[in-house]
Amino acid sequence: MLRSMVSMQNEKVKLWKKLKQRKYRERERLYILEGPHLVQEALFSSPELISAILIDEAFHLPKDWPLETIEVYQVTHKIFTELSQTETPQGIIAVCQMVRPQITLKKGGYLLVDSVQDPGNLGTLIRTADAFGLQAVFLGDGCVDGYNGKTLRSAQGSHFHLPVIQRNLFDLATEMKHLGIPLYGSSLQGKDMTTVTVRDAAFGLVVGNEGHGASPELLAEMDEEVKIPMEGRAESMNVAVASGILLYWLQTGGLAHRG
Amino acid sequence: MLRSMVSMQNEKVKLWKKLKQRKYRERERLYILEGPHLVQEALFSSPELISAILIDEAFHLPKDWPLETIEVYQVTHKIFTELSQTETPQGIIAVCQMVRPQITLKKGGYLLVDSVQDPGNLGTLIRTADAFGLQAVFLGDGCVDGYNGKTLRSAQGSHFHLPVIQRNLFDLATEMKHLGIPLYGSSLQGKDMTTVTVRDAAFGLVVGNEGHGASPELLAEMDEEVKIPMEGRAESMNVAVASGILLYWLQTGGLAHRG
Repeated sequence: MLRSMVSMQNEKVKLWKKLKQRKYRERERLYILEGPHLVQEALFSSPELISAILIDEAFHLPKDWPLETIEVYQVTHKIFTELSQTETPQGIIAVCQMVRPQITLKKGGYLLVDSVQDPGNLGTLIRTADAFGLQAVFLGDGCVDGYNGKTLRSAQGSHFHLPVIQRNLFDLATEMKHLGIPLYGSSLQGKDMTTVTVRDAAFGLVVGNEGHGASPELLAEMDEEVKIPMEGRAESMNVAVASGILLYWLQTGGLAHRG
Repeated sequence: MLRSMVSMQNEKVKLWKKLKQRKYRERERLYILEGPHLVQEALFSSPELISAILIDEAFHLPKDWPLETIEVYQVTHKIFTELSQTETPQGIIAVCQMVRPQITLKKGGYLLVDSVQDPGNLGTLIRTADAFGLQAVFLGDGCVDGYNGKTLRSAQGSHFHLPVIQRNLFDLATEMKHLGIPLYGSSLQGKDMTTVTVRDAAFGLVVGNEGHGASPELLAEMDEEVKIPMEGRAESMNVAVASGILLYWLQTGGLAHRG
């Protein structure tokens, strides 16, 4: 059903505008998803999570979208611009419900993200975890918000493909240990990964803050701290790049040989 | 020598301000490097490339920096803010000379970047190439500027560690073939990389645009098109993450086995 909205004073508009701030997103358990690509992903993957779709008055909805059960609001360009979090709005926003995924840990791969600060990096981490078919991504207490607009954009829809869960990583590490899931931590002080054998198709990989890495207390809980061999002069790698390399290594068994 | 500048009308200030635009950077062969970390990297790696250092009136220069031969200008906060390309300026800028590195191709690793559009991605690619000790990064004609402020920031000083060279990638591919350097192209239509043997410690790796990958014409010149195995639902990976995985694979010999 398509409705029109013309006033910034409308209660719904006031609420949606607040969703730019993390505290309101967490209070309302709602967030803003922007652009046709992401909205389409939500619509076809998890339509039950869409509270409303808002379109700029100039936006044309694709004819083949299944919108029968979705509330769609056409808003003035002025209102749309106020709600958008991007510099070049693409004319469509979905207001989506956060889920609190309850997952039971099982054999498989998990990414544990400790205090990553850059929303683009976090989104790229979630996208990479999805590409490798991991079971879930866990965000520790000090992480940037998983529902930040930039995080959502760089994750390119992967939020709808695997659970992204806020969780105390110490509790989680303890739980994984009880289940016999080996824990690997990315650390510049770790062992050269090419010398470490991966024993199991199940794992938890901990990666950390852009400047300082994962916290030493959390790394102390790991079965193995590993380091990517670096031959050049860069002191470290971008956290998402390092995570991609470590996930590839974990997924393919961890051994590397020159042919 | 420390000089003061108070007027926006000063000829030097006018020139520096223009360096926000790529066309003036290329005309003047100068670019702006921001923040104490990057300026320090330039000062200790390649002081001969620094044309001038500009500091905000409130900035305190570290006492142990070797500035004897460098022109340092203290500018008003207003001028500094006008020159800065960041939202939260850190009080120091270096105006640096671009180099036209003339390198002779030899056995070793090279990254060839085709039409990457996001400056952050390009910087991360350069940083990753540095971490793996590659010989050089080549930027094809359609790439975002290697001296964009965001590119420089995400490269974290790697521009001073390895040559970053603008070059026609077709000409370069031909030259590499003549030298017997095998060429690999990252492509979603490529062979599963875990089934491909890397024969040589020398290689050229081609990676491409965020949306479309490398151009088909360029990929047609490759010895091998390779694809990272993806088990999840993401359609693709971020270009910098994919490049990191492929470079790790090329550097460690390309074979992967579960232990």
